[in-house]
Amino acid sequence: MQRVELFLRENREHHLGELNDFLRIPSMSTLPQHRDDIRRAARWVADQLRHIGMTGVEIVPTEGHPIVIGERIEDPALPTALVYGHYDVQPVDPEHLWETPPFEPMVRDGRLYARGASDDKGQVFAHLKAIEALMKVEGRLPVNVRFLIEGEEEIGSSNLPALLKSRPELRPDIVVISDTHMPGPGLPAICYGLRGIAALEIDLTGANSDLHSGLYGGTVPNPLHVMARLIASLHDDQGRVAVAGFYDAVRELSAEERGRLAAVPFDEAAYKASLGLQELEGEAGYTPPARVGIRPSLDVNGMWGGFQGEGSKTVIPAQAHAKMTCRLVPDQDPDQVLSLLEHHLREHCPPSVTLTMRRGHGGAPWVCEPSHPAIQAGLRALQQGFGTEAHLIRVGGSIPIVEMFARLWKAPVVLMGFGLPDDGVHAPNESFHLDQLDKGIRTLCHFWRALGGSVL
Amino acid sequence: MQRVELFLRENREHHLGELNDFLRIPSMSTLPQHRDDIRRAARWVADQLRHIGMTGVEIVPTEGHPIVIGERIEDPALPTALVYGHYDVQPVDPEHLWETPPFEPMVRDGRLYARGASDDKGQVFAHLKAIEALMKVEGRLPVNVRFLIEGEEEIGSSNLPALLKSRPELRPDIVVISDTHMPGPGLPAICYGLRGIAALEIDLTGANSDLHSGLYGGTVPNPLHVMARLIASLHDDQGRVAVAGFYDAVRELSAEERGRLAAVPFDEAAYKASLGLQELEGEAGYTPPARVGIRPSLDVNGMWGGFQGEGSKTVIPAQAHAKMTCRLVPDQDPDQVLSLLEHHLREHCPPSVTLTMRRGHGGAPWVCEPSHPAIQAGLRALQQGFGTEAHLIRVGGSIPIVEMFARLWKAPVVLMGFGLPDDGVHAPNESFHLDQLDKGIRTLCHFWRALGGSVL
Repeated sequence: MQRVELFLRENREHHLGELNDFLRIPSMSTLPQHRDDIRRAARWVADQLRHIGMTGVEIVPTEGHPIVIGERIEDPALPTALVYGHYDVQPVDPEHLWETPPFEPMVRDGRLYARGASDDKGQVFAHLKAIEALMKVEGRLPVNVRFLIEGEEEIGSSNLPALLKSRPELRPDIVVISDTHMPGPGLPAICYGLRGIAALEIDLTGANSDLHSGLYGGTVPNPLHVMARLIASLHDDQGRVAVAGFYDAVRELSAEERGRLAAVPFDEAAYKASLGLQELEGEAGYTPPARVGIRPSLDVNGMWGGFQGEGSKTVIPAQAHAKMTCRLVPDQDPDQVLSLLEHHLREHCPPSVTLTMRRGHGGAPWVCEPSHPAIQAGLRALQQGFGTEAHLIRVGGSIPIVEMFARLWKAPVVLMGFGLPDDGVHAPNESFHLDQLDKGIRTLCHFWRALGGSVL
Repeated sequence: MQRVELFLRENREHHLGELNDFLRIPSMSTLPQHRDDIRRAARWVADQLRHIGMTGVEIVPTEGHPIVIGERIEDPALPTALVYGHYDVQPVDPEHLWETPPFEPMVRDGRLYARGASDDKGQVFAHLKAIEALMKVEGRLPVNVRFLIEGEEEIGSSNLPALLKSRPELRPDIVVISDTHMPGPGLPAICYGLRGIAALEIDLTGANSDLHSGLYGGTVPNPLHVMARLIASLHDDQGRVAVAGFYDAVRELSAEERGRLAAVPFDEAAYKASLGLQELEGEAGYTPPARVGIRPSLDVNGMWGGFQGEGSKTVIPAQAHAKMTCRLVPDQDPDQVLSLLEHHLREHCPPSVTLTMRRGHGGAPWVCEPSHPAIQAGLRALQQGFGTEAHLIRVGGSIPIVEMFARLWKAPVVLMGFGLPDDGVHAPNESFHLDQLDKGIRTLCHFWRALGGSVL
């Protein structure tokens, strides 16, 4: 590793220049006017892959934005890892809140500021440079590595499943993704579980038009009142979801797993302070990390009806609306949870209003066996790269692509994120700590070497 | 009355032409670009007042739109009635829903369609033509009559109180207003009570920004959930307002008054059908007319927070908002009711979110002694004009101007509306039944004559 270290140190400025080139491309996938930038970013990735020694580099067209692939098969007998990442970024509005322009990368206080710095160009770049360092120093890789870098992650990865199905030869032994963040500085971790999601929209309709609250107030159903009663009925006073059967499929955690998760340091005071909260809420009997990591939840994401303008308009609105999502843990099934929720809402809705419901997107929860050798190798590599104990965590978010890899390829996914919670991904002034970039590259070098020595 | 009847019949076409001239003026008080139309409407009223024999006609400028006054004092010994009305109208949007243009009056199936046809130009016109008929036929009026027709009723009558205070000589013995509707066709009525109003806006703030519902769902307060619990706490399962002390000041009705109100025909099936409702809601133990007429109520008029767009955005919003109004009955006081409501909300709000509250406009309830000779005369006149029994009713709406007349002048207010519930006031395709106009003019002729013979 000393020669790798030397290579990385000697080339640091040059590498940062390369990353800045990548970050300068405004590859916002949701904006049609940036289609050329998307193509430019794909070409940049393909050129880099060739530059670091990948073969079979291809910019695969899709019905949307292209997917870049490339690989280095050292030896068919070695395990093959697929590195997934994305070159597209989120839009930048509100742009006036950026302290420096989002596509003019700038280092301040050890952080590199730019859209995509953390999500996900910076983390893809860590992978490119780790592979480059190993190749330059050793002339070969300890494992077979395949890159799959797409351009539609921020808009739902809708063209990725078709590619995976049409090219079964892409299937690796493990998938490695760096597109998340660590629980905090000095807390390197591998995420081995994500929550699933199930979305529902509901409409309540009372009278056939908005009514005057003076002439009718007190004798007609007010859909806003009914909505409030329905939403209030969804949780009990212990913070538990009060939908009958909601927890039935939740898998019990072993004492070992609970102990392992509880061992991850968590500073509740700092957590509250960062959110500006005096008090947290949630299911009684669980810590905040457990509530988001291993327990399901139900949140209303939007609720509205009636007059929202300045001043007063004394209406009893004809309609009220809400959008809600459940976050699911193994072995909850999105469709089954939505059926329970719909049943609850129907049972609690009075006959004076009409309830209509529409299911939204769903995704199954994902959990991976943390004793898998690739994950254990990842933990050791993190410990070496960051110089401190690495943790196993479960995270509350949903990354459908992870569940898809696991489902289609039956492959373990190593979620090794180098971001930090304050990176501001999807927000103005996104940044990436350069220290995290440096340590991330080193971690990956350790990882690939360890993986080469293990039997997957 | 035969000669009056003859005059009205012979001049009906001419009168309708005059009303059409009035309705063609787009005097929408809330739209600055119609300021000249407002002035034109004021001049039209002033010209009419002179035309029907009023003296001292004046277009009084205010800080907003002018107020038109004029009077005929036959004999200082006779009682003086003040006819209040307004020449301004509501805006017309959404204009594409009008079957014929809002300012091109059109008769279809016995109804005159135009903005202001019922609210209030048509009803002001009934007063003008009743006075004209009496003057033309008899050369004098049986009582002293003063007109006060303003141009800011639809925007809050904010400049009227100053006029009333600066001109104490305007004070009459009774006030007569035709700016409401009857409970239904063939149900002429005088309204002797209106509910008051008290408005409150509340904001709930959780975290210092919108949060990702995956990463945080289950452990942070969701202001939408708290809002739902707060709103749900405002009513009990008997449809009563659950705010402690809310009903304490509500005056008990005498058995006589309850009986009188219960005698007004009410067709619940037709009421529900007209509103498109399968079921009504409301306070147990009261009929629908009682719930809106004599009982207080609390309605949320608007409630919102989080994502309202198409599709899904999985946020836990930082804020939730609601606007609510109470409708009050004697002897509830708006300020006191708001204090009770604020106390309730503070008590029910968990410490995890911050509650802020802002009081809106308020108005005291109004009730008038129905045995007053002017009201009794009005009932007899309605019976003569409509050929059927007239009723005494209390109405759920709030007309601040009525309470203001009663408070400033200590004068009884005779609320004798000729509109019908399906006139569509404030809505597209507003109309006025010409039969109601005809009967209204005749009723008013009877009324003025009866009033001249009574001792107020």
